[in-house]
Amino acid sequence: MAAERDRGTSPPTISEVASEAGVGRASAARTLGNYGYVSPELRERVLAAAEKLGYRANALARSVSTGVSHTLGVVVADIGNPFFAGIVRGISDTSRAAGFDTIVISTHESLDEERGAVGVLIDKRVDGMIVASAAVDLEDTAHLKDAADHGIPVVLLDRTLPHVPFDTVVIDNRESARKAVDLLIQAGHHRVGFVWGPPVGAPVATRRELQAAASRYLWTDGERLRGYLDALDDAGIPFDGSLVMTAAKTEEGATESVTRMLELENPPTAIFSTENDAMTGTLRAMRALGLSYPEDVSLIGFDDSSWASVMDPPLTMIEQPMLQMGALATDRLLGRIRGERADPATHTLEARLIARSSVTSPRVRVT
Amino acid sequence: MAAERDRGTSPPTISEVASEAGVGRASAARTLGNYGYVSPELRERVLAAAEKLGYRANALARSVSTGVSHTLGVVVADIGNPFFAGIVRGISDTSRAAGFDTIVISTHESLDEERGAVGVLIDKRVDGMIVASAAVDLEDTAHLKDAADHGIPVVLLDRTLPHVPFDTVVIDNRESARKAVDLLIQAGHHRVGFVWGPPVGAPVATRRELQAAASRYLWTDGERLRGYLDALDDAGIPFDGSLVMTAAKTEEGATESVTRMLELENPPTAIFSTENDAMTGTLRAMRALGLSYPEDVSLIGFDDSSWASVMDPPLTMIEQPMLQMGALATDRLLGRIRGERADPATHTLEARLIARSSVTSPRVRVT
Repeated sequence: MAAERDRGTSPPTISEVASEAGVGRASAARTLGNYGYVSPELRERVLAAAEKLGYRANALARSVSTGVSHTLGVVVADIGNPFFAGIVRGISDTSRAAGFDTIVISTHESLDEERGAVGVLIDKRVDGMIVASAAVDLEDTAHLKDAADHGIPVVLLDRTLPHVPFDTVVIDNRESARKAVDLLIQAGHHRVGFVWGPPVGAPVATRRELQAAASRYLWTDGERLRGYLDALDDAGIPFDGSLVMTAAKTEEGATESVTRMLELENPPTAIFSTENDAMTGTLRAMRALGLSYPEDVSLIGFDDSSWASVMDPPLTMIEQPMLQMGALATDRLLGRIRGERADPATHTLEARLIARSSVTSPRVRVT
Repeated sequence: MAAERDRGTSPPTISEVASEAGVGRASAARTLGNYGYVSPELRERVLAAAEKLGYRANALARSVSTGVSHTLGVVVADIGNPFFAGIVRGISDTSRAAGFDTIVISTHESLDEERGAVGVLIDKRVDGMIVASAAVDLEDTAHLKDAADHGIPVVLLDRTLPHVPFDTVVIDNRESARKAVDLLIQAGHHRVGFVWGPPVGAPVATRRELQAAASRYLWTDGERLRGYLDALDDAGIPFDGSLVMTAAKTEEGATESVTRMLELENPPTAIFSTENDAMTGTLRAMRALGLSYPEDVSLIGFDDSSWASVMDPPLTMIEQPMLQMGALATDRLLGRIRGERADPATHTLEARLIARSSVTSPRVRVT
């Protein structure tokens, strides 16, 4: 897999050949792709540079004859989230190995910004795009259809959308969450907090209301909530809305919600966090109340990191295969650019639960 | 400052107007910028969409009459580093407020990839670019000069380069490091480890060798090393090469180097880390040796984060003004795009030392 190759021997891109030859990128692409007009003098320089750098037109480059800019566009919700940074790394490693450059636009989870981003990428004539979309239903996807109408293949990443004709790469959010909550239940916890749920503002009384609310928000969050409910169901534990965070999805929101939960008469003895900021907010609330993990509250979080593993004690976390997700999405996109015509498919990768030291049995409650 | 505005009321970009009008971005830019040909029918639709979204051509948009793509390019060394993610956020907030979209390319600290990235941005006709360059001297900057020769202004970010004619935005790395190490010295530490230094592979015997080595690597790292040496000098503490990490700049390199330092006969009683991965590597080494902070070793790190503040005890860290750096670099770039002709200047912002609980006096050594 490209993500694992030796960076020191990575194949040069069209851009690097162009730079070495001192010509524009378009001239290099035309020369190496063997299409369009390039002056004999420029052509000579490009070929000399290509030989010097060891550039080899790959099968993909040979298979397309015109109009290819050798650039992929990536639209991510939040470049500040290490999860998306890892994905971008996977994408750029794989696209680079195929001779493609990658440009990235971050949308801060705003559908408006996402529409603008897709417009920019169409305007910049990318050959394809990978989008982690903030859209939640078909009505929100005109901009993605617009890209496809421009002949630009789209691959969805991290979030699925119902009824859209795009290849999609996701992880098994629901099953990952179910496993994590089940681990807490197996350790003896019956009161498990869920941070974060749909940001509806006020606690939700019934399970049905909660699921209806979740469907109006981000797909990944909804799936993780479903996994939480699955685990409760499997164990016959009744739903309790006061254990589900419904505040704004920020670290501060998590801190407030967890503080409220821990001050309940019958507080949670374990908390499952679905985001990094949800976990740091949870830790902040516990610190302020003088509570320790795992003695007072057991913890499992989503999206492993170096920090999570150097915490004392180290945190049990779910690790998403970010590089692999980026690599697979790129592979699917390059396939479409190459002209593959198979029906769009959804590829679901497995996340891994890394057991460390933040889960133990609950204290016996003295009532 | 744009970074602080209410996102819910952020001004729409050209792309969003284009999307609303159902026209290409170029048509929207021509209509709103009042240049080039647009059919009356498209023009009508763009103006209606602009009114609906509340788009207002700003002073910048009015001041330039042709050829503006309303896109800024950003080249960062590593999008996976939260520092650069914060910077990109600052850039895109500010550029968006001025009606510009932002596209980002990550180069993994590779000068080759950076050359390619600049080529892509020239090819994509950005109006200007902000570059955190991996170049260390003038010879490495032909690609930046190439951008300028294409009429595309360049602003350097995070790292300066000698003798290049570009506006530059950096922080006071040297003074920040000096202050941090001075804080450790004031607490009574005379043996202060430095993680990480230039990756020359083997410990460096003399201070002169170390400085010569540092000048061949990244500017920020060299400045932080100079600040460390300044603090030692001010306190009259002699240089000891065995306390400076020279392994590869990775978390694993930091772990190995700190393990070696802590196993010295006369180990450091404090460690200053210049990167997040340097800090997590340091913590991993201490954990493996059964050492705690601040009792056994005092710690200060670079680049504050939520994780650093929820560690137990919370870590004393230097916080870089990432949003402000991104905003200022964008402001300078927009000035150049607008045609400002002042001599290029270097803008140095202050980083802040956030005192928490990872520094205390050294234990009295029983020898």
